[in-house]
Amino acid sequence: MEHLTVTAAQQCVLASIKSLGKESVRLEHTLGRVLAEDIRANRDQPPYDVSAMDGFALRSADVASAPAMLEIIEDIKAGDMPQKSVQAGQCARIMTGAPVPQGADAVIRVEDTQALSDTRVQINVAVKSRNDIRDRGESMKHGEVVLPAGTEITPGAVGMLAMVKRASAEVYRMPRVAILSTGDELEGLNDPFDANKIPDANSYALMAQVQALGITPDLLGIARDEPAHLKEMLQRGLQYDVLLVSGGTSVGVHDYVRPTLEALGVQMKFWRVEMKPGHPMAFGTTANTFVFGLPGNPVSSMVCFEQFVLPALRRMAGFTRVHRRTVTAKLARDVKHKHSRTEFVRVLLGKEDDVLVATPTGDQGSGILHSMALAEGLLVIPSVSKGIAAGEQVTVQLLDGAEYQNEAGGDF
Amino acid sequence: MEHLTVTAAQQCVLASIKSLGKESVRLEHTLGRVLAEDIRANRDQPPYDVSAMDGFALRSADVASAPAMLEIIEDIKAGDMPQKSVQAGQCARIMTGAPVPQGADAVIRVEDTQALSDTRVQINVAVKSRNDIRDRGESMKHGEVVLPAGTEITPGAVGMLAMVKRASAEVYRMPRVAILSTGDELEGLNDPFDANKIPDANSYALMAQVQALGITPDLLGIARDEPAHLKEMLQRGLQYDVLLVSGGTSVGVHDYVRPTLEALGVQMKFWRVEMKPGHPMAFGTTANTFVFGLPGNPVSSMVCFEQFVLPALRRMAGFTRVHRRTVTAKLARDVKHKHSRTEFVRVLLGKEDDVLVATPTGDQGSGILHSMALAEGLLVIPSVSKGIAAGEQVTVQLLDGAEYQNEAGGDF
Repeated sequence: MEHLTVTAAQQCVLASIKSLGKESVRLEHTLGRVLAEDIRANRDQPPYDVSAMDGFALRSADVASAPAMLEIIEDIKAGDMPQKSVQAGQCARIMTGAPVPQGADAVIRVEDTQALSDTRVQINVAVKSRNDIRDRGESMKHGEVVLPAGTEITPGAVGMLAMVKRASAEVYRMPRVAILSTGDELEGLNDPFDANKIPDANSYALMAQVQALGITPDLLGIARDEPAHLKEMLQRGLQYDVLLVSGGTSVGVHDYVRPTLEALGVQMKFWRVEMKPGHPMAFGTTANTFVFGLPGNPVSSMVCFEQFVLPALRRMAGFTRVHRRTVTAKLARDVKHKHSRTEFVRVLLGKEDDVLVATPTGDQGSGILHSMALAEGLLVIPSVSKGIAAGEQVTVQLLDGAEYQNEAGGDF
Repeated sequence: MEHLTVTAAQQCVLASIKSLGKESVRLEHTLGRVLAEDIRANRDQPPYDVSAMDGFALRSADVASAPAMLEIIEDIKAGDMPQKSVQAGQCARIMTGAPVPQGADAVIRVEDTQALSDTRVQINVAVKSRNDIRDRGESMKHGEVVLPAGTEITPGAVGMLAMVKRASAEVYRMPRVAILSTGDELEGLNDPFDANKIPDANSYALMAQVQALGITPDLLGIARDEPAHLKEMLQRGLQYDVLLVSGGTSVGVHDYVRPTLEALGVQMKFWRVEMKPGHPMAFGTTANTFVFGLPGNPVSSMVCFEQFVLPALRRMAGFTRVHRRTVTAKLARDVKHKHSRTEFVRVLLGKEDDVLVATPTGDQGSGILHSMALAEGLLVIPSVSKGIAAGEQVTVQLLDGAEYQNEAGGDF
């Protein structure tokens, strides 16, 4: 199997994956899901012609040669229904959002009038027919699609669902994800302290990356370097939509996972990607499960998750926007690049004169999980780069947490 | 009370608010929280000098005049402990991550050697002492702070917590939030259909905005325009850390909420902000509760939430980064601006030649919740602006969902 570029490997993964089936969820659980049905308006909104202003509903013909004096026949508030019809020489006091009464064809705002008494008002300016009237159905018309299938359910979309009185909606199912670490050198979170072992950080970093997508994964634990145990654990993982297997620190362990996966019917699509960090990085499929073989090193594993697993999980959940947002930033200091692999550099983001500035987090050794904990983005160095000088423009993938910043971003 | 600018109103809110108390949560619930304790390393990592390569651990003096032939005394894998001490003329086969045995002071990678037999190897090049050895404690030293209090818990930080075997951690408590809609014109989600009423979209849009911050709010329902009922509902809301009250469509209703809040001991800080949409926008406090009075219109309410409630909730939860990330984009078409208020325009984000382009979502009427459902950002038009021409640079606040995009952002 050849060494794929990051883009080719991403395309290989995404070409294998479709959205999962549908399920109905209650409105309070729809945020962050993708609609699997068209949502239609259940009424005209506004349900009748309503006033766009606080003022008076009147017959425009009556005020054509303003000023004009009119009789006030009733007060109409939002939520009230008019009781009377406006005849020639009459008007109704009306609040914003209240229904325009029969007979009236325009509204004039209160600022263009002068009260004479509780029952009489002087209209100071002429208005055209339909002035300051919001038409019935202006915001939405009964039966029209207000949110098509495929829409990402943002807070605004949740509001729209409530607006059309949908207490539940059909959405794409979220993938069920299993996470398995492998290697005798690993010490589980609840295992006793053993100075000779390495704590299993991978399972939990991956758990959190999956959680950040709104999915609660199952942690299968640590598979020991023992064929029967590894096989049993992998078999459990293959009951899920997605299985994430991270290797130990030695290459040998991963070589051990591969034949077992193949023996279990997993068709491997690739085992290497030309990237740093991120070695080895494997992908395979069965009829029902997508398997990602991630590096044993936590930083490498997390970077690979960002490039391959995240888009796959989002695609399965029905999203069209499956990639991290990238932004253009100015590089704060020189970054070397010698090899021919695409490199992902952990960076912090700042601003100088409104320009985004990316600063590498320091030591980029793949053992330095700490730098991944603090990073706001991954700077992408293309494989063909010969290094990037301070001040040059770079592409940065925003990481979790980077959707917020310290400052408001301007004086508003 | 004066009309505040957006920035002044934000400062007024944030000046009133501190982070809440602490609580201990299990590791799997730490993502998206803020640490309220310093997290220290519980061991040296690596726990001993380890090999950085697959190769041979040897005495550098033995290979000073390489090539040299050495006896292989054992094989050391990651997770193994060396059983023997390396004497003059000897070496040990060693895997990446495995402990360097006693007596050896350097590692040589396998590529610079030549196997002679199972027990003998030829070393082709000389190496310095400490070559390809990762020092004990290089990644972290026992007792040192690896994550200080105040750290946002990203997936990488969850990995770090697992690395130091923390099954739980102290984090800042999340605010408890109540949401109340007001107004006789509103129809609840589970109320029977009434063509003359307006569905309560506000409660659910606000619910989703709060959920997006990782908080599950309580929906108190709809307070009718009846003094006793409104008072009872507001009293319930004042049991929470934060109460969000959204008004009906008429100004009158909000005038009704204010005296009731004041009678219940809420000290109002402001009632108006110079912004569009976003009228009226109020903020008040009691000893234990922050009260936000939001507009009855869902779009206005959501925009006000973004500017004032979101930073407040994040501040209470211990975050330093309390504002939405802003990005600079090129405006796709002219936007008018006449009044002297700061205006927030719903936009979609695209890219042209790697430059972010912001396109207004069309009708910006505050009744158009649909446009808020689709928006990826809020373009900020400063109050002093006389309008912005197509092609000019603008500041855009990224909204929920905007952390992802369709394309990978380059060919990697």
